Amino acid sequence: MPKPSLRDALLDAGFDLLHAGGYAATGVAAIAAAAEAPKGSFYNHFPSKEALAIEALNRYAASRRLDMLAEPGVAPLQRIRNHIDHLHADLAAYGYRRGCMFGNFAAESPSAAPEVTAAASAALARWCALLAGAIRDGQQAGEIVSGLDAGAAAQLIVDAWEGAALRAKADGDGTPIDNVTAMIFDRILSVR
Amino acid sequence: MPKPSLRDALLDAGFDLLHAGGYAATGVAAIAAAAEAPKGSFYNHFPSKEALAIEALNRYAASRRLDMLAEPGVAPLQRIRNHIDHLHADLAAYGYRRGCMFGNFAAESPSAAPEVTAAASAALARWCALLAGAIRDGQQAGEIVSGLDAGAAAQLIVDAWEGAALRAKADGDGTPIDNVTAMIFDRILSVR
Repeated sequence: MPKPSLRDALLDAGFDLLHAGGYAATGVAAIAAAAEAPKGSFYNHFPSKEALAIEALNRYAASRRLDMLAEPGVAPLQRIRNHIDHLHADLAAYGYRRGCMFGNFAAESPSAAPEVTAAASAALARWCALLAGAIRDGQQAGEIVSGLDAGAAAQLIVDAWEGAALRAKADGDGTPIDNVTAMIFDRILSVR
Repeated sequence: MPKPSLRDALLDAGFDLLHAGGYAATGVAAIAAAAEAPKGSFYNHFPSKEALAIEALNRYAASRRLDMLAEPGVAPLQRIRNHIDHLHADLAAYGYRRGCMFGNFAAESPSAAPEVTAAASAALARWCALLAGAIRDGQQAGEIVSGLDAGAAAQLIVDAWEGAALRAKADGDGTPIDNVTAMIFDRILSVR
């Protein structure tokens, strides 16, 4: 039976390389080398690069702290602010150069790794749904304008965040994230 | 001297493969094969894959019809609508599966092809600037609410479009584009 620690090392290395470099650009050999594992050992632990990428995406999704959007005892608008602040800090921690793994994977060719594309799409859809819930809670609490379609607004926020993350990544600069954050609250949710 | 037609065939094939598959996933050999050119001939016409990708990006940028945003004799809001309709039709023509080349290239690793990343970033910045000009014209014409920062709104629209294009690409479905289009006019520009 393979040692759990080698599997963890492959997943850790794969997570970092896939996040920084993208799916197509990251090979199994590079992942094994970064994990200091023999290349042949990769397939003792993962059936395919695609399988590792989906585990990495799930780990990334868990680190998005979507639970913040439904956190008990916190006012809805503050939940959204806390969540956005968390995402911003995470992008900034890598100088914006890694971008959002959801968007990175969604931007790559769907035909190269259809299960990875589908997992990224599902992660974005789940994010939209939880954000829509927080917006609806904010509307019921009188914090967010009532005439807004919460589902449509949540999609707009997620899309705008992903686009800003792309521009921030390309430039290695957080200005697009500052802009989208201000516009989410000032313009889309009209709360400032 | 190389025949111009072979160079054109390489650029045509490269454009399609890079748009559909992305930068890292598309090799020089595949481009040459799609152009029915000997692999060795590629470097008679282009110094590198990066150089071809930048030419492809410039061709893509020209096809975005940014000139529509400043079209003489057309009301500013209608210019924005015409431009968005043009972009939507182009995404739809490929079943949304190719996405936007600007966003696709910006999403890939900046370290793999820094000049391609910089060209994608510059293209997005130019788009933002021209869109901001049309928004300003619309504000002066009384078509768009005056309290809006045109530059910030233009960035929000471009970011939201790019994010929606990613989701549409992942799913092969235009629903995210329909949503962002409605939200651009209803919510961001408040004109419906």
